[in-house]
Amino acid sequence: MGLTFEVSATTPAGGRRAALRLPHGVVQTPVFMPVGTAATVKTVQQETLEHLGDDGAGAEIILANTYHLYLRPGHELIRRTGGVHRFMSWPRPMLTDSGGFQVFSLAKLRKITEDGVEFRSHLDGSKHFFSPEHSIDVQIALGADILMAFDECVETPATWERTRDSMTLTHAWAARSRAHFEAHKHEVPWAQPPGRVPHSSQRHRDEWNVVPQDLTGKHQSLFGIVQGGMYPDLRRESAERLVEMDFEGYAIGGLAVGEPREVTREMIARSLEILPKDKPRYVMGVGYPDEIEEYARMGVDMMDCVLPTRAARHGLLFRTPEPGEDGTAVRMNIKRVEYAEDQRPIDPACSCLVCRRYTRAYLRHLFVAKEPLGATLNSIHNLSFYLDIMARVRSQLAAFT
Amino acid sequence: MGLTFEVSATTPAGGRRAALRLPHGVVQTPVFMPVGTAATVKTVQQETLEHLGDDGAGAEIILANTYHLYLRPGHELIRRTGGVHRFMSWPRPMLTDSGGFQVFSLAKLRKITEDGVEFRSHLDGSKHFFSPEHSIDVQIALGADILMAFDECVETPATWERTRDSMTLTHAWAARSRAHFEAHKHEVPWAQPPGRVPHSSQRHRDEWNVVPQDLTGKHQSLFGIVQGGMYPDLRRESAERLVEMDFEGYAIGGLAVGEPREVTREMIARSLEILPKDKPRYVMGVGYPDEIEEYARMGVDMMDCVLPTRAARHGLLFRTPEPGEDGTAVRMNIKRVEYAEDQRPIDPACSCLVCRRYTRAYLRHLFVAKEPLGATLNSIHNLSFYLDIMARVRSQLAAFT
Repeated sequence: MGLTFEVSATTPAGGRRAALRLPHGVVQTPVFMPVGTAATVKTVQQETLEHLGDDGAGAEIILANTYHLYLRPGHELIRRTGGVHRFMSWPRPMLTDSGGFQVFSLAKLRKITEDGVEFRSHLDGSKHFFSPEHSIDVQIALGADILMAFDECVETPATWERTRDSMTLTHAWAARSRAHFEAHKHEVPWAQPPGRVPHSSQRHRDEWNVVPQDLTGKHQSLFGIVQGGMYPDLRRESAERLVEMDFEGYAIGGLAVGEPREVTREMIARSLEILPKDKPRYVMGVGYPDEIEEYARMGVDMMDCVLPTRAARHGLLFRTPEPGEDGTAVRMNIKRVEYAEDQRPIDPACSCLVCRRYTRAYLRHLFVAKEPLGATLNSIHNLSFYLDIMARVRSQLAAFT
Repeated sequence: MGLTFEVSATTPAGGRRAALRLPHGVVQTPVFMPVGTAATVKTVQQETLEHLGDDGAGAEIILANTYHLYLRPGHELIRRTGGVHRFMSWPRPMLTDSGGFQVFSLAKLRKITEDGVEFRSHLDGSKHFFSPEHSIDVQIALGADILMAFDECVETPATWERTRDSMTLTHAWAARSRAHFEAHKHEVPWAQPPGRVPHSSQRHRDEWNVVPQDLTGKHQSLFGIVQGGMYPDLRRESAERLVEMDFEGYAIGGLAVGEPREVTREMIARSLEILPKDKPRYVMGVGYPDEIEEYARMGVDMMDCVLPTRAARHGLLFRTPEPGEDGTAVRMNIKRVEYAEDQRPIDPACSCLVCRRYTRAYLRHLFVAKEPLGATLNSIHNLSFYLDIMARVRSQLAAFT
């Protein structure tokens, strides 16, 4: 079994409250997924991720990047250690992207053919080739609960014709991803009795937070990705073609790449109209606090973004608006001198471990002194802030039962 | 009141088990003090420090560097925020060095006179002057439980004459430090009713791990520093002069600067012969695991060193020897390829949160990928390892009651 998706409430606007049941656990949606690029949500310990947020429930699902893990430490190494959950000691659900986005944004000297993409590693210039089949093989080796079909990400802006051609290629690749996944999904490293899964020394086995789970008979789920650039007709067509292929969930890709917010919103809306209401819908790579709130209310179930952690490392923090301030979040640049002696927490309305313990003055000092703890504490707060937004939206959606 | 020091057991070799009672709490000795250079033990959260070690007791005292905090964010800022405990949210005992060691090792263009040291900041080249009085003023503003007399650190190697002259200057500075401290110790920022101590927003005040403590009437304690280079006669003379000045504790400085281990041991032994048995004795800036174990057995009560955290950031980890291996600790270079698929914890005999959860393979990956989490997890393990050594020594010493 891959996943089940139970919608418990839907609003007139299409927002829905649901539970997504995956091999490694249940995810309450709408959900924001922290990005754990190289099998680590940068600067944050796994035990901290497990307890983030006002309710202490932590991140219920995180993402890892196939491109990064393929290059380093290598998917075969991760397969041999039992999959990425075990490799990084994360017992909860995970999702991997297809590698496509990084191949198109990070890698060098790309050569795209119908068959796939040849590229050079951004790390050492070595030559590699990703086809839909290879992306799926790598993602099966990594063993996340959800994997993504391999897609082409068109440059932006792109003409209608260029976008249509790219979309057509993405659809062919989606079909090949689907076929290859069906033929090989039994090869996921954890689809074996738990006794065969490698684990730490016997002494520690029972103490591990990662209790060996019985995943026998369970398998991964594959999501298709809607493309179509900034063209509503192509978005609709893409959604229709993918629905015909019958994926277990659907992502909306190629957004938040510099287009105006209204366009992002419009492309999401056009895609959601077509995508089935009984399956999870995931917008990739968004966004700012107000965006994730808005899209969740529109009926998006899953989102991911590096923004809360990347912004944190650059000293950009989000906080709850105070009376007289608008929006979902106010941005703070912690390096500003106005915070040098500010004894308040980042966000007096936040109960994350950072806001319960540390002052703006201390966080500013850490940032100015380039102390690594600054990036950690900033990341913990921003992630908590994002998870709290989703928790609030979920609770509001639940009222529509 | 400054400190009390109650020895409960002493071995024939001079090692002793004691409790050091300070304004911010009780420290069980012998103790290893993690170094929190810029009001942060690099890469490690305060809540983690509080639970380090096999017994979960955490670090009972940490050190902060006066030179670094004086330059950034500035001691007056820290004074206004209530002292370094409150600034960094560390409710337990702390110790500050005098700034001397960093002035002599980090700062540029030093000019030493009888009055003090003029130097340029290693950060921006700005000009500063430290006298014994100024060092004490800065340390009172920082408000650690223990502060150190300002001393000259002689270069190494140095002739007997040069070392004697430097020691003589250190003694004069110690006397001035003592006098200035006595005249100003009431100015410590927390020697006021707790109501006047600045704190975080009201909402969080009671939730803080840093519960406002009533420190009324309590004050800091000043330690003198034995110098004398690598000359036993000078070490003895220095210890005698300092004891005449009657400090609340005594440090042995100027060691572990490149001299052979036997010389370090000899200098410590000669100094300990003179220093009073009813006061805490602190060897500054040591050392490797076997060193801290050995010196604790000789009768040293306190030690500090950047080694466990600095080594961790460079991928050097310590683990318990296995059958057939000698010594207090075995060194592991986590970047070695032999660990690439090693599913064991760093140290199967260690129960720190890193060894309970993460594999060598994962830690190697984090190190190779330059992921910041690697430095954090490595630091947590090495610090736990150091604290566990001290806990074991304390328990062995306690048998001599």
